[in-house]
Amino acid sequence: MKKLILQFFILSLITTVANAQNFADYVNPFIGTTNYGATNPGAIAPRGMVSVVPFNTYGGETTFEKDSGWLSQVYEKTNSHFTGFSHVNLSGVGCPDLGAVIVMPTTGEIDINPLTYGSTISNQEARAGYFSTHIDKYDINTELTATQRAGISKYRFPAGKANLLLNLGQALSNESGAMVKVVNEQEIEGMRMVGSFCYNNPKTIYPVYFVMKVNKKADKTAVWQQHNKIEGPEAQWMEAYNGQQRIIEDAYYPIIGDSLGAIFSYDFAEPTEVEVKIGISYVSIENARKNLETEVSNVSFDEIANRTKDNWNSVLSKIKVEGGSEDDKTVFYTALYHTMIHPNVLSDVNGEYPASKTRKTKTTEGERYTVFSLWDTYRDLHQLMTLVYPEQQLNMVNTMLDIYDETGWLPKWELNSTETYTMVGDPAAIVIADTYMRGLDQFDHEKAFEAVTKSAYEVDGGNPVRPCIDSYIKYGYIPVDDEIDKKLWASVSTSLEYYVADWSVAQFAQSLGKQDKYKEFKERAYGYKKLFDKETDFLRPRHKDGKWYSPFDPNDGANFTHNIGYVEGNAYQYNMMVQFDMPGLIKQFGTKAFESRLDEIFSTGQFDMANEPDIAYPYAYNYIKGKEYKTQEKVLELREKYFTNKADGIAGNDDTGTMSAWVVFSMMGIYPDAPGTPQYALTTPAFDKITIELDQKYWGKDQVVIKKQGGKSNHIQSIKVDGKSHKGYFINHKDLVGANEITINMK
Amino acid sequence: MKKLILQFFILSLITTVANAQNFADYVNPFIGTTNYGATNPGAIAPRGMVSVVPFNTYGGETTFEKDSGWLSQVYEKTNSHFTGFSHVNLSGVGCPDLGAVIVMPTTGEIDINPLTYGSTISNQEARAGYFSTHIDKYDINTELTATQRAGISKYRFPAGKANLLLNLGQALSNESGAMVKVVNEQEIEGMRMVGSFCYNNPKTIYPVYFVMKVNKKADKTAVWQQHNKIEGPEAQWMEAYNGQQRIIEDAYYPIIGDSLGAIFSYDFAEPTEVEVKIGISYVSIENARKNLETEVSNVSFDEIANRTKDNWNSVLSKIKVEGGSEDDKTVFYTALYHTMIHPNVLSDVNGEYPASKTRKTKTTEGERYTVFSLWDTYRDLHQLMTLVYPEQQLNMVNTMLDIYDETGWLPKWELNSTETYTMVGDPAAIVIADTYMRGLDQFDHEKAFEAVTKSAYEVDGGNPVRPCIDSYIKYGYIPVDDEIDKKLWASVSTSLEYYVADWSVAQFAQSLGKQDKYKEFKERAYGYKKLFDKETDFLRPRHKDGKWYSPFDPNDGANFTHNIGYVEGNAYQYNMMVQFDMPGLIKQFGTKAFESRLDEIFSTGQFDMANEPDIAYPYAYNYIKGKEYKTQEKVLELREKYFTNKADGIAGNDDTGTMSAWVVFSMMGIYPDAPGTPQYALTTPAFDKITIELDQKYWGKDQVVIKKQGGKSNHIQSIKVDGKSHKGYFINHKDLVGANEITINMK
Repeated sequence: MKKLILQFFILSLITTVANAQNFADYVNPFIGTTNYGATNPGAIAPRGMVSVVPFNTYGGETTFEKDSGWLSQVYEKTNSHFTGFSHVNLSGVGCPDLGAVIVMPTTGEIDINPLTYGSTISNQEARAGYFSTHIDKYDINTELTATQRAGISKYRFPAGKANLLLNLGQALSNESGAMVKVVNEQEIEGMRMVGSFCYNNPKTIYPVYFVMKVNKKADKTAVWQQHNKIEGPEAQWMEAYNGQQRIIEDAYYPIIGDSLGAIFSYDFAEPTEVEVKIGISYVSIENARKNLETEVSNVSFDEIANRTKDNWNSVLSKIKVEGGSEDDKTVFYTALYHTMIHPNVLSDVNGEYPASKTRKTKTTEGERYTVFSLWDTYRDLHQLMTLVYPEQQLNMVNTMLDIYDETGWLPKWELNSTETYTMVGDPAAIVIADTYMRGLDQFDHEKAFEAVTKSAYEVDGGNPVRPCIDSYIKYGYIPVDDEIDKKLWASVSTSLEYYVADWSVAQFAQSLGKQDKYKEFKERAYGYKKLFDKETDFLRPRHKDGKWYSPFDPNDGANFTHNIGYVEGNAYQYNMMVQFDMPGLIKQFGTKAFESRLDEIFSTGQFDMANEPDIAYPYAYNYIKGKEYKTQEKVLELREKYFTNKADGIAGNDDTGTMSAWVVFSMMGIYPDAPGTPQYALTTPAFDKITIELDQKYWGKDQVVIKKQGGKSNHIQSIKVDGKSHKGYFINHKDLVGANEITINMK
Repeated sequence: MKKLILQFFILSLITTVANAQNFADYVNPFIGTTNYGATNPGAIAPRGMVSVVPFNTYGGETTFEKDSGWLSQVYEKTNSHFTGFSHVNLSGVGCPDLGAVIVMPTTGEIDINPLTYGSTISNQEARAGYFSTHIDKYDINTELTATQRAGISKYRFPAGKANLLLNLGQALSNESGAMVKVVNEQEIEGMRMVGSFCYNNPKTIYPVYFVMKVNKKADKTAVWQQHNKIEGPEAQWMEAYNGQQRIIEDAYYPIIGDSLGAIFSYDFAEPTEVEVKIGISYVSIENARKNLETEVSNVSFDEIANRTKDNWNSVLSKIKVEGGSEDDKTVFYTALYHTMIHPNVLSDVNGEYPASKTRKTKTTEGERYTVFSLWDTYRDLHQLMTLVYPEQQLNMVNTMLDIYDETGWLPKWELNSTETYTMVGDPAAIVIADTYMRGLDQFDHEKAFEAVTKSAYEVDGGNPVRPCIDSYIKYGYIPVDDEIDKKLWASVSTSLEYYVADWSVAQFAQSLGKQDKYKEFKERAYGYKKLFDKETDFLRPRHKDGKWYSPFDPNDGANFTHNIGYVEGNAYQYNMMVQFDMPGLIKQFGTKAFESRLDEIFSTGQFDMANEPDIAYPYAYNYIKGKEYKTQEKVLELREKYFTNKADGIAGNDDTGTMSAWVVFSMMGIYPDAPGTPQYALTTPAFDKITIELDQKYWGKDQVVIKKQGGKSNHIQSIKVDGKSHKGYFINHKDLVGANEITINMK
């Protein structure tokens, strides 16, 4: 026994050393696992449908308990009550959902109450695609890995009684309802209801299907189920089991209900390793089984873990950084890793996926993606995909167009083929136009244009993407009256989102030769000026009759409190959210006033690194000639303050990789500050050399290198593109991918 | 519209007239539908797995509400709040279960709350295999019929909005949990948990599967589901829908949970007839679909109704009665109909059924039956089956032997392949031995003998059929101490049941040439004498040390109150439950004391016609030479008092046809008073001529006729068998089936 364990550690050690130069080794999945980063250290493959994540936010005495606050994560670094490994999880989102299909290994007598069977865990180790820990209460060593559609767990049980509890009652989702069927002593199948994410569209509930296979035949199998509480005369007969959980042995048939689970029990003569493989599908149990069989059957845990690590290395190596500290590299590759979690695949190995809304089974030829948190990701994540992973980005655009086909509307916050309508605006239009404007145009333009203009026009009241579009068209902004009438959230924020979308549609129209549409949408975009109050220099809520809404305090709305006009921010945080026309916005302010307001925002703590509306502010100094050094200073300052190689090393919620994309770009010295405009703002890179591998198929070139050289300061002296002086602190996408080398000379 | 309705009524009229001579026309399914008879007027085929029954015992203001008392029926004649038609139902049982898969037709806006969508119904008409009514609130005329594995409903909706609500939340079962999937605009599939009948074996829960097909495409489809109630911070976001039911439109995927349903909605330009067909299976959804397709697809409602009526007529015509009043005939054929409800088929059209305990799919070559309420039915129902429907009885015996193979034990109260362990004793042993002793022996004797003796011997504590068998063997009776120690119910009742079983096993052994076993079990059976207290002339609870338990009051235990020694009865009602050795019992009393006690029991109201232990008492006078006339008087009196052509026309709970079998036999003038002994006690028939069609295959003859002739009194003068004088007031089964005519000459 000792010998075996020793061999295991030696092997681990060898593996670690051998892969030391792997980019995947720079991933620290613990980054973002506290301070509401909402990431997790679980095992996941790039864009995996499945992740295997330790669940430690369930339980009354837990510090961050899932139901004690608005907690949207199954794992919190500082918590200590572990209750199993969940197999479908969201990373960096703001509402609770999924966190379901939970396996908990225990020893001794069967206990099916997570409050009592929970344990502390120790020796947590997380790498890209791998997690291991020791479950203290039961002395079980555990390793986890995953492919895109299956999770694999290895439990080393001590001798004696052992149990695998498959808990379908507990979940992060507030939905309930599950079916479980013990197929035989090595296999369980079933489904679990999830959905109603953020409760904006509370009818969007649906099942996640699973098949679980275990490599050791269970000595005993059982299911448990919660009996509903009966009142009245019958209650006397039922006695102790009324309203209680029942353990039903040898039940090889479906059990259905709101709270249930299955148990595989063992009695091991000696310490024994058990491998549990769980395949997931959103189409059917059969597909979950296909996913499992195709991806992980007849493959050992170690081989799967290695393959997944190789996959991670393969995607992460698209950007090679040199120079910079080890921590910088860890922050960088972990951020890049976090941009590869969501969107994730929804389609099964056979290409099948549930169509949006009806969930009827369809088949895709590419990849069907899901988890589009577009209000977040339109700002930088998709620009990163376009630049470095154009094939993925195209699949994402095509997914959006398929959703348009399926539902009549582009997505806003799509989750497993449901539309959650979380946040505001028309972000898919921006993503599609931005992708096209950058030259990644291998999708159906005409359908795309039809889709992005449908939500821009449809005024019959049934426009789920752009509520109050009629007022917006009529007044050039959404009057605060509509907000007071509860027709929508946040009249200013929503108007600003519509302006960006309209700007993007205008650019798209122009490229497609639709000159009339270009003019029309550009005009619409410039409507932002109507919301600019020259008295206060704020974009502020305005009535139909043109009067400004009052009382008005630009501080209102801090810390997610409700305020009129804005969502998840206040007037400061939306003050400059007109990235598509910064010169125009600056004119509204006057250059000096603009700069002072920016300075004020940063110096008075109004800047919120943890949320999206002001995420591009640090780059706004680039628009003031001679003040670009402030961008260089701010970006460095924010990076070092908020993005670190620690559990709290993401500014706040990662927003499905949006924050991470910000730091990935910022560390490369380029940032797509104006969605819909194919440009990058430039700043000081964190590394001496950055090699971005380009996809030859789309960019006609293999790579572009960004080099930092010269002085030791953080201030840029000059910028050269392929040896030629570069004017200003912006670069077009076309110029970037066309260049061999961007040289940034430091003072 | 008027014309159509008129035609419909005329057609109904013609059908009624045309079939007036059908035996099925004498069935009045309303008999037993109040006074806790627990039968129902729903549409069912002979031994059908499915019945379509109006559910009117749900709702707060209902007089007999399912949860306000220990109500075991979905229908109560005197109730008025109808909430839909349930498709799996039990008839004449004592605990609530099934009553699930409920369809409710409504009009107007969708309402999914049975408390408010419920309606009165009028013009209720019930025939064998057919029910029709008018749903007042919605002005919907409804007709129902059924095959063995499918139910068919025809709803005539008025013009306008119409809805079919498939409610999987409401049920008579106290279990919950269902899955529903709208397959398309004409089809719904799913499953619903049921089980834990009587709560003796509360882990026995399992799904019933269904497929519903509708002949008109729905304009809109939806499912509804109950959201669980969330507390804490998230509750604020959820607002009105927290803990509420949600209607989810166009959901073509499974929805699972404790409370849900599906909706098909229509908007009819004119009055429209809609046919709903529901196939049921206990194996799988696929089998439910097969059952539906095989039995009712491409067949019109009327054709199915006619076929089912023909089937009823075919089984009922096995006994033809002549003479007697129309009401007598109705009572008789309705009782015979009630003996053909349970046991019912469990196997699907392809022979598949869920094996007991594991519910693994097995295939039968004959019929797999279910719903064996054996503590009741061993007393007369199976003897009726043996005599008139031997093929069915053989399938029932083989089902019991299969259950023995599957679980290691014979059934006691079997329900859909679960063992509910309701009531006491070892009744399957009696049924099997009795069947064999009557000469219906085409089953595996050796396995049967092994099965009946296993429970008689197994003393290792794991004997679920005969608890306390060790004490019983040791002391010759179960000491009351075991009852006080809560090792079992009712020490006297249970001992008495074991004696009958042992007597039956003894007879079976003797027939098989196992002389030693014969002696051993006969001795065991005679143990009843040890419980006979000559001081009081009661079979009374006794301690291990031989002392009688006291205090002792033979009145204790009336009206189902708890008493020591007896279950569902008192010392009077068990006083003569030694039918296998009445001469021996009479010796214990002394003939005079025996007769007085019998007289006392009848005259003081101690006789309970509504429950089984004393059900053979009226025939006990036949054992007292010269007093047989009292049997003739009592049987007539009881028949006329308790068994009438009225809704309260069954003495009490029909006990899956046991009460009905009592009246069927009693009206024929023959009653199998001593289970395990192949005899019938004789009394005055209710009819002038009774022709029992015999199955040539088993009895080598076509029929036996019982004729009543002579005087007008109810007293028998003499009995002849094929013209020869018959001695005494009993006849062997062999003699009965060997005879051509039994002539009963009246005084």
